[in-house]
Amino acid sequence: MMLLETIQLAEKLADVSGDIICQSFRQPKLQAETKIEEVSSIVTLADQKAELAMVDLLSLEAPQDGIIREEGENISSESGLYWVLDPIDGTAAFAKGFPIFGTLIGLVDLNKNTTILGIVNQPILKERWLGVRGKTTRLNNQPLVNIYAKETKSQLKDACLTSTTPLMFITQRQKAIATKLQQVCKRTAFGGDCYNYVSLASGWSAMPMVILESDLKYYDFCALIPIIEGTGGIITDWSGKPLNEQSTEILAASNPVLHQQALAVIYNND
Amino acid sequence: MMLLETIQLAEKLADVSGDIICQSFRQPKLQAETKIEEVSSIVTLADQKAELAMVDLLSLEAPQDGIIREEGENISSESGLYWVLDPIDGTAAFAKGFPIFGTLIGLVDLNKNTTILGIVNQPILKERWLGVRGKTTRLNNQPLVNIYAKETKSQLKDACLTSTTPLMFITQRQKAIATKLQQVCKRTAFGGDCYNYVSLASGWSAMPMVILESDLKYYDFCALIPIIEGTGGIITDWSGKPLNEQSTEILAASNPVLHQQALAVIYNND
Repeated sequence: MMLLETIQLAEKLADVSGDIICQSFRQPKLQAETKIEEVSSIVTLADQKAELAMVDLLSLEAPQDGIIREEGENISSESGLYWVLDPIDGTAAFAKGFPIFGTLIGLVDLNKNTTILGIVNQPILKERWLGVRGKTTRLNNQPLVNIYAKETKSQLKDACLTSTTPLMFITQRQKAIATKLQQVCKRTAFGGDCYNYVSLASGWSAMPMVILESDLKYYDFCALIPIIEGTGGIITDWSGKPLNEQSTEILAASNPVLHQQALAVIYNND
Repeated sequence: MMLLETIQLAEKLADVSGDIICQSFRQPKLQAETKIEEVSSIVTLADQKAELAMVDLLSLEAPQDGIIREEGENISSESGLYWVLDPIDGTAAFAKGFPIFGTLIGLVDLNKNTTILGIVNQPILKERWLGVRGKTTRLNNQPLVNIYAKETKSQLKDACLTSTTPLMFITQRQKAIATKLQQVCKRTAFGGDCYNYVSLASGWSAMPMVILESDLKYYDFCALIPIIEGTGGIITDWSGKPLNEQSTEILAASNPVLHQQALAVIYNND
């Protein structure tokens, strides 16, 4: 499949999942109507239905590709390519009616460990980020400018540190590193999920950003890699190595200088 | 001033502050142009300019009323009424370009300790909540339904607990209470500021909500009181007493049953 066709397919995946997700947003009555004991079932159902719609589309239009997904069984690949799907990243935000969750759609060549493209789709606000390896990331088809990307004088003491929740830091080592970075950075903000990463890529922030997370799955970050890298940001694991499907600890930064400083904090802790 | 005129004035305050705040949202270049060392200055400037516009309007249209505000000096009251202003509640969200901050506008009769009205204005998403003492809270002029308000079988183990950040729990007692509630509730989500409270009032959530916060100022919660109470939710301090201008510890819940259960957790800890 040519790259343009691949991008069009990724956009169609975002369209079909977005339509389904919007039907369940801020609809607590649906929850009552399901009459299922599991109280988060409306979220789980939206997640599953959106994923199924994407899997159905892929089985028609890209049957040679594999699928790695949040809700169901993975599907093996004949082409070496895998679609990596997370229908609702930011489940807690979605469940509260906050429009800062996202559908993550990545495409990776696992033989080469290269992420070909990534989409973050926010269907309520109609915001769609598209990152393509080697190209400038776009938001709703407009190229993004991360004004911090080439800043060489950035310092952690002027940066905003974000993590979705402190509860994701499980081991003593993880807690110590997170606490140390919180002490060094100007400000720490929790919450955000994928929206932290697209904020970093978009250069929206009033100060450069560092994102420190752990306990993530491949489908939580695969799509974010080309989106971050496509505006000059950096995203690696906590030792500075490229991410792969086994990674769980993520470090992202608005530019390489901040990334190196954060790596030094981690290294000095170990 | 008649109530209708008072509401109209409150809406005008939301209009003028919203116009100013929107100009600075997701504009990191303004930050660079300010050439001020303080890196969060764009946020501070928007905060100050929005507050000044509201203070100017009040000095023209309600010179007899006092003002309690985040950024500047308080202004004393001849009428006994005070406008309680927080131009940008959710500074960290605003600074990251997340449209889930809010402008809080409360009007209180401090002699009677009654909050007459409260507005939360989200100017980017064009969402405006209006709570008026004794009336049903409205979002963009539509009455809200909190479907959990009359639920008598709610339990903490089915509820979502939210706090803007765990860093707001400072004393050992506060940390112990927050940790205990996190263990009892189904899910804990951080981030959110005023948006947690309007989500609770709006009944958006897929499960009933409990909000536990500390280290707040009067302008952080005054406007939220009639908004929460106007859809059957409960908002008090950690001992269950009505909030006043000295309160710093806040407990809100989707209904009285959950509120009592959360109070019991706090009481049993002490």
